[in-house]
Amino acid sequence: MLCNQALFMELVEQLLQGDRRAAARLITLIENGDGQARQAIGELFPHTGRAHVVGITGSPGTGKSTLVAALAKETRSRGRTVGIISIDPTSPFTGGALLGDRIRMQDLTGDRGIFMRSMASRGNLGGLSAATADAIRVLDAFGKETIFVETVGAGQAEVDIVRAAHTTVVVEAPGLGDDIQAFKAGILEIADVFVVNKADREGADRTAKALTAMLDLGIPVRRRDDRSNTWRPPVLKTVATDEAGIAPLADAIDRHAVYLNQSGQFAAREREQIGDELRRLLARALLEQHLLQVGEAEYAHTIEEIAQRKLDPHAAAQRLVHALRTEATS
Amino acid sequence: MLCNQALFMELVEQLLQGDRRAAARLITLIENGDGQARQAIGELFPHTGRAHVVGITGSPGTGKSTLVAALAKETRSRGRTVGIISIDPTSPFTGGALLGDRIRMQDLTGDRGIFMRSMASRGNLGGLSAATADAIRVLDAFGKETIFVETVGAGQAEVDIVRAAHTTVVVEAPGLGDDIQAFKAGILEIADVFVVNKADREGADRTAKALTAMLDLGIPVRRRDDRSNTWRPPVLKTVATDEAGIAPLADAIDRHAVYLNQSGQFAAREREQIGDELRRLLARALLEQHLLQVGEAEYAHTIEEIAQRKLDPHAAAQRLVHALRTEATS
Repeated sequence: MLCNQALFMELVEQLLQGDRRAAARLITLIENGDGQARQAIGELFPHTGRAHVVGITGSPGTGKSTLVAALAKETRSRGRTVGIISIDPTSPFTGGALLGDRIRMQDLTGDRGIFMRSMASRGNLGGLSAATADAIRVLDAFGKETIFVETVGAGQAEVDIVRAAHTTVVVEAPGLGDDIQAFKAGILEIADVFVVNKADREGADRTAKALTAMLDLGIPVRRRDDRSNTWRPPVLKTVATDEAGIAPLADAIDRHAVYLNQSGQFAAREREQIGDELRRLLARALLEQHLLQVGEAEYAHTIEEIAQRKLDPHAAAQRLVHALRTEATS
Repeated sequence: MLCNQALFMELVEQLLQGDRRAAARLITLIENGDGQARQAIGELFPHTGRAHVVGITGSPGTGKSTLVAALAKETRSRGRTVGIISIDPTSPFTGGALLGDRIRMQDLTGDRGIFMRSMASRGNLGGLSAATADAIRVLDAFGKETIFVETVGAGQAEVDIVRAAHTTVVVEAPGLGDDIQAFKAGILEIADVFVVNKADREGADRTAKALTAMLDLGIPVRRRDDRSNTWRPPVLKTVATDEAGIAPLADAIDRHAVYLNQSGQFAAREREQIGDELRRLLARALLEQHLLQVGEAEYAHTIEEIAQRKLDPHAAAQRLVHALRTEATS
């Protein structure tokens, strides 16, 4: 167990010198919610801001992992180093991922220019988003130039994570049933690039045409500060298992990075993302502080009052907030 | 626009008298995050706690909506009233659901004993979970005896929502690809009942056997307070489009309700859920209060410092928390 400041600083030093094991250990400490890992992030932070972060999102069965592996190979062949962060579904109990790094993307493990990591959330408030943002920073400071973040699709945490990416690729596949229509409702607006993977299957053209038709109808602009958006998400087809269509996809991702820089959107998005993250971290810090000050007994008593329907949860939250304000000013 | 207290109380009164439009309007106001809707929840709250809340979750393409419709019909035929809340994917920009109530589950709309509603989140911190919990309360107070909550699967918000259910049904379908293995990692542990829907398709037996094998290997107990769990999740097969296997599924759901009551788990789960909700509401209330007190300028200044890498987000959050504490005690 690492639990003192000096050792943390040593890990950061090793990371900045290119030590892979230091990167892995730092991410593990972040995942475990270690308070001192936050201080390590402070040390790393000045070395971040250089990577292009690419979110890859889509529902189960679209072949995202294979697509990420193929994209990683393509990006490497273009002379850039690659980081991959794969977000496994939240497991509030074990925090575990059934399939580890070794099983997925086996063919990439020989390349020192690629760093892969799968993550699981501890199920705490904003835990996954916060840990992922910090893991991206570790790989950024570690010198990875393109960082792919793979998520399993719809859901608030996933949307939060995708908002932390500079470029978001939404992956669809033909024939996933009617529910995919509903699924798209939340994900359409965050896409910078659409991919219909498994494009050798029946229905691929139909899926691609449906996406193009929705774009023609006019999807709301991606970000609230991006009213002058002139980027139209391309709709591309891939067969990731055959590495077909991967180069055009990598081209589109590169073009989007150029667009972000030239339009000033890069800076605007970053500030919006920082604001989102700051609100999440602040909410958690305020809650921790508050629970300490209010005390376990008062808190348990309040839960009991709610369970007995003497008090509703909203009124209870307001009372708890107010209780402390009164104390502080008296 | 309703914006005064008296009208809110009138809506609550109408709801308690069985007015469907009052129920619909209250849920809309909750969705819109109207502060006074929270007061309405306070009025409703003493009339809640009677419904059996059943979460139905699974990835896109498993046929959840059709399954919920079939279960609703079956539950009605058993003489109970039904509420259905369908969570559409988060749309942080439009907040809209592409497919509305009218398109889905068309054949149920003639029955006054069923109340259906689809919801979309506004993308704010914990917004979807909070709004869903309150919408469940509206239908509970409205007298719906079984409330089905349909979600699109993995994701932190979805896990939070599912934790608000008494009974959680996890829906799988054959042939959704390799990613489903990863998907299961987060969802296995919250299942009280497993369903392999589309069981007339190739691979249904294989999927059912894989689930049974995982149960045999021993999945961690469902809840942290439920160490003496004696409930083993059954694995059932359905073809919802043909209404095949629906009665055995409804039986399993009913049996689970009996188990919860007899084992004392009903009360234990409820207290755990209330604690989770209270923490979420408290975090939001504390953040709102804090942002008001710190002020927009200080907040924008902090974001700029982070963007320039002079300060990392964790240190910034701590500084903002501390700034106010110092003020309060001086």
